Amino acid sequence: MAHLMSTSCSIKISSSYRPFGQPLSEDRTVLPNSFTIKTSKSPFKRLISKGHRAGRSCGVLATAASVSKEVSANPRSGSDRSPNDSSKPQRVMVIGGDGYCGWATALHLSNKGYEVAIVDSLVRRLFDHQLGLDSLTPISSIHNRLRCWKAITGKTIELYIGDICDFEFLSETFNSFEPDAVVHFGEQRSAPYSMIDRSRAVFTQKNNVIGTLNVLFAIKEFREECHLVKLGTMGEYGTPNIDIEEGYITISHNGRTDTLPYPKQASSFYHLSKVHDSNNIAFTCKAWGIRATDLNQGVVYGVKTDETSMHEQLYNRLDYDGVFGTALNRFCVQAAVGHPLTVYGKGGQTRGYLDIRDTVQCVELAIANPAKPGEFRVFNQFTEQFSVNELAALVTKAGQKLGLDVQTISVPNPRVEAEEHYYNAKHTKLIELGLKPHLLSDSLLDSLLNFAIEFKDRIDTKQIMPSVSWKKIGVTPQTVPAN
Amino acid sequence: MAHLMSTSCSIKISSSYRPFGQPLSEDRTVLPNSFTIKTSKSPFKRLISKGHRAGRSCGVLATAASVSKEVSANPRSGSDRSPNDSSKPQRVMVIGGDGYCGWATALHLSNKGYEVAIVDSLVRRLFDHQLGLDSLTPISSIHNRLRCWKAITGKTIELYIGDICDFEFLSETFNSFEPDAVVHFGEQRSAPYSMIDRSRAVFTQKNNVIGTLNVLFAIKEFREECHLVKLGTMGEYGTPNIDIEEGYITISHNGRTDTLPYPKQASSFYHLSKVHDSNNIAFTCKAWGIRATDLNQGVVYGVKTDETSMHEQLYNRLDYDGVFGTALNRFCVQAAVGHPLTVYGKGGQTRGYLDIRDTVQCVELAIANPAKPGEFRVFNQFTEQFSVNELAALVTKAGQKLGLDVQTISVPNPRVEAEEHYYNAKHTKLIELGLKPHLLSDSLLDSLLNFAIEFKDRIDTKQIMPSVSWKKIGVTPQTVPAN
Repeated sequence: MAHLMSTSCSIKISSSYRPFGQPLSEDRTVLPNSFTIKTSKSPFKRLISKGHRAGRSCGVLATAASVSKEVSANPRSGSDRSPNDSSKPQRVMVIGGDGYCGWATALHLSNKGYEVAIVDSLVRRLFDHQLGLDSLTPISSIHNRLRCWKAITGKTIELYIGDICDFEFLSETFNSFEPDAVVHFGEQRSAPYSMIDRSRAVFTQKNNVIGTLNVLFAIKEFREECHLVKLGTMGEYGTPNIDIEEGYITISHNGRTDTLPYPKQASSFYHLSKVHDSNNIAFTCKAWGIRATDLNQGVVYGVKTDETSMHEQLYNRLDYDGVFGTALNRFCVQAAVGHPLTVYGKGGQTRGYLDIRDTVQCVELAIANPAKPGEFRVFNQFTEQFSVNELAALVTKAGQKLGLDVQTISVPNPRVEAEEHYYNAKHTKLIELGLKPHLLSDSLLDSLLNFAIEFKDRIDTKQIMPSVSWKKIGVTPQTVPAN
Repeated sequence: MAHLMSTSCSIKISSSYRPFGQPLSEDRTVLPNSFTIKTSKSPFKRLISKGHRAGRSCGVLATAASVSKEVSANPRSGSDRSPNDSSKPQRVMVIGGDGYCGWATALHLSNKGYEVAIVDSLVRRLFDHQLGLDSLTPISSIHNRLRCWKAITGKTIELYIGDICDFEFLSETFNSFEPDAVVHFGEQRSAPYSMIDRSRAVFTQKNNVIGTLNVLFAIKEFREECHLVKLGTMGEYGTPNIDIEEGYITISHNGRTDTLPYPKQASSFYHLSKVHDSNNIAFTCKAWGIRATDLNQGVVYGVKTDETSMHEQLYNRLDYDGVFGTALNRFCVQAAVGHPLTVYGKGGQTRGYLDIRDTVQCVELAIANPAKPGEFRVFNQFTEQFSVNELAALVTKAGQKLGLDVQTISVPNPRVEAEEHYYNAKHTKLIELGLKPHLLSDSLLDSLLNFAIEFKDRIDTKQIMPSVSWKKIGVTPQTVPAN
């Protein structure tokens, strides 16, 4: 069955440039392939895509020159680093590969020579429809994205559309693709979304916990050497009054000492789901010998990577709304549209941040340097700490340079969190593996602001303010964010 | 709707003694009430029970004298201790009230003057059918149990049969019963059960986590003053090389200090589900002001309480099989039947233990001394520590006194756990509230052994050996325990 769900076998796509907004699949006179999409009876579980006319080769591609210079120059390409067989490229399954971090990562790994498959239910796109939200950037369908990628680079990314909570589907993808590594972004990833109503709180924990359990069982049953690279969040730690270590802390107590999992204090049903995942994964490493890396990621900002910049059809999503938007990206969009920057409460909330170009770099480093069998390795994945007030000041300064009139307002904090607190989180392990951080600079902020200005006509200002309250969450289903 | 699910309104039951094994409901000539049971379309979700002939009063009951003397002598009865209204008895909902600990607790609280409702899906009885297991003691249906309780004591325990993962059902029970406290035993509680196969691992985490989330939402939405008393397990802590504190530990690190949740290292999908619950509850205490007590319970032994001893129809279940049986109870049954005591591995595994008479006492103490709004209180609920080898030696000695030839064998450990380790867990908070422990004594072991001998003809020796392996768990559904 699973082979039916892959688009990899025979899709051949022309490299001709197409203006953005004109879907490749509608352009049959230019695009020399037919492409059929079948939907199974459960429309969001499985979308079966199969290409035809396998005979034509793409040949040399007109736009291939736009591929980052790093690719060919980098001697540490994926094809050189398979732990199992150095002559074959490593096969990496990116679960959630249609999302913000997942899409950028899938393209980056493909560019680096890895054989990549995306596994995604596309439910993130459904959330936008249900809540009346949209990415600032127009984003193409996953099918057009992959056709464009193939056209530009000649590289194929396989596609399995389905829900990893459906173990039959997941088994088929594992046995079809045979991954050497799984990068697991396939979770509901918004804290506010998890706090909209009871059903979304339950969905978040069920989806994230059961999906991850299924991935663990699939690895144990079908690919026991496969390395799990799991995206967690720095939010699992909360804001303790002591330094945050990377996953573990050595405690001396009543004359004895042990190194134990670092205590977690998550502050939304989403963040809690990540804590549950971490605990489940740690157990399976010990009990079954699973090899796993838990990437406790900070808040990601930015939108462009080398790969998503190659073509408008490859653009990544940029969320600015009160549910999916995160602090720095949201501030840039607010500045671009003349909306005051919305600081929640006192603004002393301090977190770790990183550029999306470092997200893809960190995931690649984790794959290239896998955990040992039975090892549950935890990396804190961020590059710098900022308070919300510091971010607002940086965006204000960058906006003024571009002639924007940037105001800041404090809005009642919809979350339950400390607004003034100690925060010092370690993040040395990825640096030791070779991470070269892209630190937040004026030029990045200029670029983000200009990007936001470019798409300012698409902004729905009604979506900017926080719409979900941690304290007001109730049991009545909300079809739009509660106000 | 919910009032239809209660048996409380009008059941009137004769106190005449009936021989064990003859269900009260079949004895219509003796039992002067009619009792109808309707099943909704989802048979395990809701079983609607409604009594008729409400006109007859029970009057003075012939067996009422068997009620424990403590009841009338105790001035601190439930009716005197309501935090809301001292003139009205506190209303306690016991979720999972048909199970081993839940049944004993429901009867104890009813006996102490609390208004009690049992909420249970009865799925624990289904597990026995599915796995071919049975309690050593024959146990009556929940309906006969409650009729017998009413007949003996004159006290009514309301019954709501349904699944708390069904929020509509749970809402109705909350709005119908209006609890002042919820005692939550309603979880899949066996570590080996959770390690049988993937589907049971997933069931355990989904059932336990979502059920508890629903209880938290029901309290927030319908009964915000209600005190949640949640049964956790000492197994959440694992076996760290430092002293185990009660829920929290003060850590000094790099010159700073904070009191943080004690690190957890659970070692089965069941134990992990309890960790997930604890984390979820802690968050809702902070975010919503829920008042909660987490009882991290040790291994419970014994079978009789004052209340379950009153009549054979009230007998509690006693599990001795490799899935639901726990160490000390299982050893007594093994000794009674001439089976060698099965020590897993080296037998140095040390845990906290408590008598089931202390379980019911601890729960009552927690209810009588509720947590404050917003407080997440953690008590370690056990009275003594033993290694498995120490338990085997105690049972051997007690068996020899009764003329039994007791042998011990070491069997390969089906679990993944340290077999020799440091273990020192604190358990002072319940003592400070007034717990008077029933420590493990020769007389209790004599009594347990004699009880096991009484029912030895019911023992299925094929169920004694461990049948579930932590390492061999797979994705193929098992209809009987894997051998």
